[in-house]
Order: sequence, then structure tokens, then C-alpha cells
Amino acid sequence: MTSSPPSSPNAGSRPGGRSAKVRAAVHRAVQELVREDNADVLTIPAVAARAGVHATTVYRRWGSMGDLLADVATSRFSGDIVVPDTKSLREDLERYAYDLARDLGDPDTLALVRATIGTGGEQGAAACRGERQAGLEAMLEREKARGGQPPTLERTTDAVLAPLYYRAVFTNEPLSPRWARDLVSHLLPE
Amino acid sequence: MTSSPPSSPNAGSRPGGRSAKVRAAVHRAVQELVREDNADVLTIPAVAARAGVHATTVYRRWGSMGDLLADVATSRFSGDIVVPDTKSLREDLERYAYDLARDLGDPDTLALVRATIGTGGEQGAAACRGERQAGLEAMLEREKARGGQPPTLERTTDAVLAPLYYRAVFTNEPLSPRWARDLVSHLLPE
Repeated sequence: MTSSPPSSPNAGSRPGGRSAKVRAAVHRAVQELVREDNADVLTIPAVAARAGVHATTVYRRWGSMGDLLADVATSRFSGDIVVPDTKSLREDLERYAYDLARDLGDPDTLALVRATIGTGGEQGAAACRGERQAGLEAMLEREKARGGQPPTLERTTDAVLAPLYYRAVFTNEPLSPRWARDLVSHLLPE
Repeated sequence: MTSSPPSSPNAGSRPGGRSAKVRAAVHRAVQELVREDNADVLTIPAVAARAGVHATTVYRRWGSMGDLLADVATSRFSGDIVVPDTKSLREDLERYAYDLARDLGDPDTLALVRATIGTGGEQGAAACRGERQAGLEAMLEREKARGGQPPTLERTTDAVLAPLYYRAVFTNEPLSPRWARDLVSHLLPE
């Protein structure tokens, strides 16, 4: 995309505006189709038809369904969870686990994560982790700055993030608030 | 499928034999396409073409790509890991984690898990867990029978199974043998 001004000064039809509208319509169409839970119709022609744009537009911009899902997941999982800052690592982690459990427990979120994992490859997987790992890292760094000796990021990921994702994606057990809090207790015994 | 004998006594053309051959060809085709890592072509017509059978045969027998993937994953992840029985829970779990890390670290296995999660719904997710949770349960029960006090199945799943699946599916970090063993050490401190 170049930064040159449009050749016609026709207000409201700037390429950026049109482009952003297409993106929003396509993202919305993907989320609707994912929600309808029929993976067999999750194709670029189906997304284009739902979004009311030409399939060639979608192919040109996103290339494949995997890349498109990764893009939708990146938007969805960026900035979606506020990183708690309570001055206590335990409380930060408990809030974080609680928020993530609620988020992953939402059927629409889960459907998007599963679809993205299925076709988005490494890029899709990274999009689903989103900023969650960075959020954990921020909490651990603040604890260090306070003079504490927090567990490593790897250990915290294995003990808190992994069980939340595993339970959501691979089982149909509920992600209860109590269970999420217990994950933190096991990582940080009193 | 009825159990009546074929009307013609033509040896070698029993419906069971034919049916098993179709199943094997279709399963093989799915695994090949999954391995080729192009989720956009993972459709029933593409599988049928690769397997050399009619698409209608595949639709009639499996219904959807999601059901077919769940069936392939069920075959693949049943009886694939021998449950260790070393008389020591720690050693059992270490071997189990090591075997599972090696299995999930295999790119073909991982591609099948991701594809099945993507389109196989709850059934697909259950197929990917396979008998792994049952294997853990068997090891914990044996420890109880020896008079030990093992952690619960939930706790063991969160501490060992979940990090292995999370790291394989959501990150591109290696599932190193040492890391897998450390998961057990954190669950069972000396």
C-alpha cells in the first residue's frame, strides 16, 4: 500500500477506508462461520459470500484460509486481557488465570482457537497464544523489580497457561474459577 | 451393515474385506494430505481422489471431514503408547512423559492433532487425548494399590499432560526429554 493521496478527491472513498471496511466485513464473516460450527464450510468462497465481497479480493489479501484465520485470531487475542497489577504476584496470577479461564470458556472464543489451530499452522498457533505469554512475563518482571524471586516464565507457562489451554481445547470439562485459582496455588505454595 | 453372507460366493470380495480396504485407503489419504500441510485442500473430494474412491463413498461412511479426521485420530492414538509399569510412579510418569514428548514432537503426529482439533469438534478433541488420560489413571491406580498416595488424576493431567500438549500445539519450542522429566519432578518433589 502506498501513501500517495487518491487521484480523485472523492471524500469517503479513500482506499484506506474501503480497505478497512472489507477487512472488518471479512473478519466478521469468519467469526460468524466459525461460530456456526461447520468446519466443512469454512472456505474462502464461503467467507467472501458471507462478507459480500469477491472471493478474489479475499484470496489477494489473505492468500489462504489459514492466513485469514491467523489474522482474525491476532486481532481477537491482542489486547483482550488486561494484565493485572495488584503489587502481589499471587493475586496478579489469580486474576489472570480467572480472566483467561472465562475467555477460553466462551464457546465462540474456543471455536476460533480450534479453527485457527487447525488451519493456521505456526502463525495461527502464535496468534492464539497472543499476548498471554507476554502478559505473564510482565507480571514476573514486576515481581523481580519488587525484589521477589518469581518462578521462571517457562515454569509459569507450564503450570498456569498450559492447563487452561489444554482443558479448554482438548476436554469438555468446565474451566471453573476455583480450579483456575488452584493452578496458581500449586505454582506458588504458601 | 448386515451380517448376511454375500449373495455370490466369490472368494476375496466379501463386503468386510472391501470395506476395510476402503477405510485403510481413506485413512492413508488423510494422513498424506495432512502431512502436506495445506489445510485448504483437506476436503472430502480431495481425500477421495487421493484414495482412489468415490467422494460419495466417503460422504456416506464418514459424513464430514471433521468426523473423518476424528476417526483417523482415534485409530492413530489408540494403543500407540505402552503404559509403563516399573513399580515406581515417578519412573512410570517419567517414561510416559518421555514417550509422549517424542510422539507429539513428531511433525506428522502434530499435523494430525492440529487438523483434528480444527474440524473434529468435541469428538476430535477426545480422539487426540486418546488413551493418554486412561494411561495416567492406570499408573496412579497401581500406585494406590501399592499403598502409595499419588496425586489426583486432575492434578497429574494439569502438571504433565497439559504442558506437553500445550507446548506441542501452541508453540514451536522443542519438547526436550529433560524438560519432560522436569514436569514430573515438579509434580512429585523428592
